[in-house]
Amino acid sequence: MLYSLTAGGKRLRPVMLLATMEALGAGSENGIPVACAIEMIHTYSLVHDDLPAMDNDDLRRGKPTNHRVYGEAMAILAGDALLTYSFQIVAESESIPVDKKAELIALLAKAAGPEGMVGGQAADLEGEDKTLSLEELEYIHHHKTGKLLVYSIIAGALLANATDTQLDHLKQFASHLGLAFQIRDDILDVEGDQEKLGKLPGSDQSNKKSTYPQLLTMEGAKRKLDFHVNEAVNELKSAGVEDTQLKAIADFIIKRDH
Amino acid sequence: MLYSLTAGGKRLRPVMLLATMEALGAGSENGIPVACAIEMIHTYSLVHDDLPAMDNDDLRRGKPTNHRVYGEAMAILAGDALLTYSFQIVAESESIPVDKKAELIALLAKAAGPEGMVGGQAADLEGEDKTLSLEELEYIHHHKTGKLLVYSIIAGALLANATDTQLDHLKQFASHLGLAFQIRDDILDVEGDQEKLGKLPGSDQSNKKSTYPQLLTMEGAKRKLDFHVNEAVNELKSAGVEDTQLKAIADFIIKRDH
Repeated sequence: MLYSLTAGGKRLRPVMLLATMEALGAGSENGIPVACAIEMIHTYSLVHDDLPAMDNDDLRRGKPTNHRVYGEAMAILAGDALLTYSFQIVAESESIPVDKKAELIALLAKAAGPEGMVGGQAADLEGEDKTLSLEELEYIHHHKTGKLLVYSIIAGALLANATDTQLDHLKQFASHLGLAFQIRDDILDVEGDQEKLGKLPGSDQSNKKSTYPQLLTMEGAKRKLDFHVNEAVNELKSAGVEDTQLKAIADFIIKRDH
Repeated sequence: MLYSLTAGGKRLRPVMLLATMEALGAGSENGIPVACAIEMIHTYSLVHDDLPAMDNDDLRRGKPTNHRVYGEAMAILAGDALLTYSFQIVAESESIPVDKKAELIALLAKAAGPEGMVGGQAADLEGEDKTLSLEELEYIHHHKTGKLLVYSIIAGALLANATDTQLDHLKQFASHLGLAFQIRDDILDVEGDQEKLGKLPGSDQSNKKSTYPQLLTMEGAKRKLDFHVNEAVNELKSAGVEDTQLKAIADFIIKRDH
């Protein structure tokens, strides 16, 4: 569990949660338990995704994948334990008001489980070796990556007592940002540098996965990336929180090289 | 998810939860969401346990194991989804009082996660191909099987507003019952009938697992089974709930042939 949790990574989801709280004028300290829970769920999904039966990856975040170090059986258990522990952290937290805990846990499970991330992974699996339509590809990404990103923002907004209007715009912001994030990921898999990525580029192609550059051409994928980043920034403005770290995160996502 | 959930099984854990509520004079209907959550967690653990990287079992509950039908990748995801969804069910339930939800979820995660079931599975994995001491074997079973069984009883007791004294005795009851359950399992793996078990007997020996009959002889294992069943029944008496379905469950466990 610790090996994969401490292997680095961008910590994008926890940062988004804490940045959302700060953008809304709340202290971010009460966000730490949920932020940790989200990162644990993200990490467990990578550990399981890297397994030989799934993507069969040897490198993650520049280090050997969990199962390459501890064996497949222990990697499966480490993932299971990270997932379970994430709910324990939130449920046991003393900094989250008791009337918000159940809602935060329900939304986290929804974002991570069969109606969210795992549902997206299952659809992704079923779509392997097929040419997907753009709609199918977006369905997969919206669930596989998007839901947990959106949850990071929503959880921060709930913890910081956002208004309903702010919550709506922040959801839209997160949704566009999630798609932008995935498009950038697909672009990096073609154009990226192994050292910066911490993994081998070209794995989408060798795994025969449908990607944005493949469906839209590289030009088209980059235009789509710009569109979603602009929409994201507009939603931030509508939520009244454009001059904040959240804007910096959107900028980071469009420019990142890993 | 549905394939493994509906493949049958004894439903021992949900039955224990509901029987605990009824033994304490409460209606059991409010226990259904937690009862389902526990069965989902139990089922996910079987789906992952059966994987080639773990026990590599082909049969479970008389049917081909999940990965034999849907492939390894989908079986991993089905397990992940069942685990996540179990927390969603409890968190979204409208029949559980809001002040009890966080406690029930925290205890469930503790029973199922690294401090409970998954911790026991990891210890079990590390103990493979070694001869374990009786203490090590009990540690494994106490975590791998015992914690979730104990949780079934505790959750029922909490939902039925048990007194602290009742809660203590019911915990002890569940703990003895959990060990009795595991000893019976080990005995069945030697003496059981394939048709009734729904799986091949002898898998412990071929997997080189330490068992009670192996450490204590078959005679000794059966004596230990009797001891724990008697202790369990005594605890029921101390909790003032001996003439109930819980007693029938203890009897079932000592006599079951599958």
